[in-house]
Amino acid sequence: MSIRVYDLCGADENQRFSPACWRAKMALVHKGLSFDTIATPFTKIQEIEGGMAKTVPLMIDGDNKVGDSFDIAVYLDEEYPDKPSLFEGKSGIAVAKFVMSWANTTLHPLVAGLVVKDIHDILADTDQEYFRTSREAMFKVTLEEFQAGRDGKIVGFRKALTPLRGILRGQPFIAGDEPRYADYIVFGTVKWLVSVADFDVLAADDPIKVWYDAIDAKYSGL
Amino acid sequence: MSIRVYDLCGADENQRFSPACWRAKMALVHKGLSFDTIATPFTKIQEIEGGMAKTVPLMIDGDNKVGDSFDIAVYLDEEYPDKPSLFEGKSGIAVAKFVMSWANTTLHPLVAGLVVKDIHDILADTDQEYFRTSREAMFKVTLEEFQAGRDGKIVGFRKALTPLRGILRGQPFIAGDEPRYADYIVFGTVKWLVSVADFDVLAADDPIKVWYDAIDAKYSGL
Repeated sequence: MSIRVYDLCGADENQRFSPACWRAKMALVHKGLSFDTIATPFTKIQEIEGGMAKTVPLMIDGDNKVGDSFDIAVYLDEEYPDKPSLFEGKSGIAVAKFVMSWANTTLHPLVAGLVVKDIHDILADTDQEYFRTSREAMFKVTLEEFQAGRDGKIVGFRKALTPLRGILRGQPFIAGDEPRYADYIVFGTVKWLVSVADFDVLAADDPIKVWYDAIDAKYSGL
Repeated sequence: MSIRVYDLCGADENQRFSPACWRAKMALVHKGLSFDTIATPFTKIQEIEGGMAKTVPLMIDGDNKVGDSFDIAVYLDEEYPDKPSLFEGKSGIAVAKFVMSWANTTLHPLVAGLVVKDIHDILADTDQEYFRTSREAMFKVTLEEFQAGRDGKIVGFRKALTPLRGILRGQPFIAGDEPRYADYIVFGTVKWLVSVADFDVLAADDPIKVWYDAIDAKYSGL
């Protein structure tokens, strides 16, 4: 049986926006492994595989069940060493963790500030209720307040991508000539925003757009 | 003849603060190569090795002369493959460039805002003149104005280190169990600030302090 990935979805099952799920799916694409995704709304996560997961992605590969997108990438390199590698060496895994920490701590709050209400709006009713309650408890303000003032914020988001933009003059991907997991980490974050935003996430002349489109094409090309 | 590194200095030749020079020196320490540093004030850089360099570090290894701290690290791994490696694989070099881009674009402006006038003050008179003129042309304000408001800024600097702090719960160094060049990049930045600051750069209970001290001890232990 092929690999299955529980993948977060909106009211429309084709709406897939989770950054962590995109990271996991891109890792599978990179390895050249075929897989099916299982559309999973927020409030159904607790029911999957007998209630073993609190978050998605959750990947099922035969008898192996792996949650957490980073662990999935590490697992895939260990389990399928003959397929294209996502990391080079143990230090490759460690430094990719830094890239993830950068994306999660620097970019993710900015994405939430841009589209948290829009994410809410694409969810099914039950999920909207869960999402609003849990996120408003986290942010201490309403989703509407958290998302207010978008025009200035998109400038801030693009500026936060400066470290990525800075290397793309000299190399097409974070990992060099070809993308690896370090790229898919940041791609997942940008894809999350692009999936939900009704505005241009990247300026038309941003070199990051070339990087983004190249990785996006690897997925859509399947 | 042992390797020589032209290393930026203040009016006191023992005052060595350049982040790029610290990166190069730590790369040499990591490789276990013995080297001498040559104290070089700003306005003497143009005279070294027949005027070949606009910046330091400049490393002389026999007939090879390598400027740019990142190029020095890549050179050392190529020239001395049997010594402990600074990178794993080509993607290790590429992803370290992202770490450098992060440090240079995110942290360096904050360091300048904290101590640019203090750096000026430790330079010899001729260097002070060069430094003030060139930096004020860059910043469009006086050094005094650029450094104003330090108390809030140190909070901002510590906050900007969040991506590093985030990984140190799970691994002692950016590169994993042992430091590599990705660590020395960020170390160089923090060492720069520590070298000049008359205030605590890191809070006493910051996990980054453990990381910093471990790397610093590798140098001072020589």
